[in-house]
Amino acid sequence: MASHATADKPVLYSYFRSSCSWRVRIALNLKKIDYEVRPINLLKGEQKSEEYLKIQPFGFVPAYIDNKTGQTLIQSVSILEYIDETQPGHALLPKDPFERATVRALVQAVAADIQPVTNLRILKYVGDEKKVEWAKHFLAEGFKALEAMLQKTAGVYAFGDSITMADLALVPQVYNGVRFGVDMSAFPIISRINSTLSELPEFKAAHPSQQIDCPADLR
Amino acid sequence: MASHATADKPVLYSYFRSSCSWRVRIALNLKKIDYEVRPINLLKGEQKSEEYLKIQPFGFVPAYIDNKTGQTLIQSVSILEYIDETQPGHALLPKDPFERATVRALVQAVAADIQPVTNLRILKYVGDEKKVEWAKHFLAEGFKALEAMLQKTAGVYAFGDSITMADLALVPQVYNGVRFGVDMSAFPIISRINSTLSELPEFKAAHPSQQIDCPADLR
Repeated sequence: MASHATADKPVLYSYFRSSCSWRVRIALNLKKIDYEVRPINLLKGEQKSEEYLKIQPFGFVPAYIDNKTGQTLIQSVSILEYIDETQPGHALLPKDPFERATVRALVQAVAADIQPVTNLRILKYVGDEKKVEWAKHFLAEGFKALEAMLQKTAGVYAFGDSITMADLALVPQVYNGVRFGVDMSAFPIISRINSTLSELPEFKAAHPSQQIDCPADLR
Repeated sequence: MASHATADKPVLYSYFRSSCSWRVRIALNLKKIDYEVRPINLLKGEQKSEEYLKIQPFGFVPAYIDNKTGQTLIQSVSILEYIDETQPGHALLPKDPFERATVRALVQAVAADIQPVTNLRILKYVGDEKKVEWAKHFLAEGFKALEAMLQKTAGVYAFGDSITMADLALVPQVYNGVRFGVDMSAFPIISRINSTLSELPEFKAAHPSQQIDCPADLR
């Protein structure tokens, strides 16, 4: 695992089922940026290797190396903002400050208040006996609040009719909701947007089943 | 609790000990913006009132009303970005994209990976018997990772020698670390930066003990 990027492509340290890696994969696809994947197997504990912890001290994926500068970035939300600020093509945030704030609030609802409280490290600590109940509780609570936010903001997508960062946060989170058995029919706006987005090629290519580190039986 | 701002000042829905409200209080002080506080008593459950949930469906503080537009914003990170984008004065983010990303990664480390997993709603769900152990575990784990990040980024403050959003996230989180009995001497960079920042008037005025809703015995 070298920490230097190849000259011609950015590098994404990623795990196929990591929702935070997935957000960045969609962003890169929407920006039409080809990238090299370096898989970090979270189940094998590769994120806790001495080498990877130097890159991301929490041991979380993703991490991203900009091939033009060789600089390494961590934290998916920060990487999304960076890609949007430095890359041409489809804008992931609106231009108006209030609209930007509204999209960022949707992103934070997922990235701060749903994902971190239901991710692998938390569920490990909660323990096998209680982890499904825990995940279902906080996922359902989070989706309920997100649905209420979307009632004010959604068009075809999470914020109006153009794809934003909020959509990149939404789709992977819905996947985890389904995985833990949350009844997603209780959240019709989330479900509708997720269905629409899931048909788009940039989202399809970012799906866990399409990743090089996805085990054959899950493809 | 009206949802419209007064004409002359922005409004901050805040709780004196909420670390997320505290971040925004510091930002407003650094930007020299006078604001009206509308206290939401989290212990009395005011955040779960029908009226407040219309503003913030998760029932979290802060919420912010821009007095010039009457628009309401939620999620502290989103509010910080909005204030920085719309208000002159001290910049809360550097100009260079990589430096911005580095500051945002520090913010997210606190705002996504430390605060949400140790906040009031999580500790309530964990229960009285285990909540202190839970909080100490995830606070210490988080500070350890944050300290490693700061080894690469810190100057006088969290990122170099100018105050950024990262500092606004750091100080309130240290307060919660101390409150739960985490040995902060294990994190010398965090502790040093926190001490330096705590002496500044903008940070002093944002401290819980200085808020109108702070009970007399905690002042």
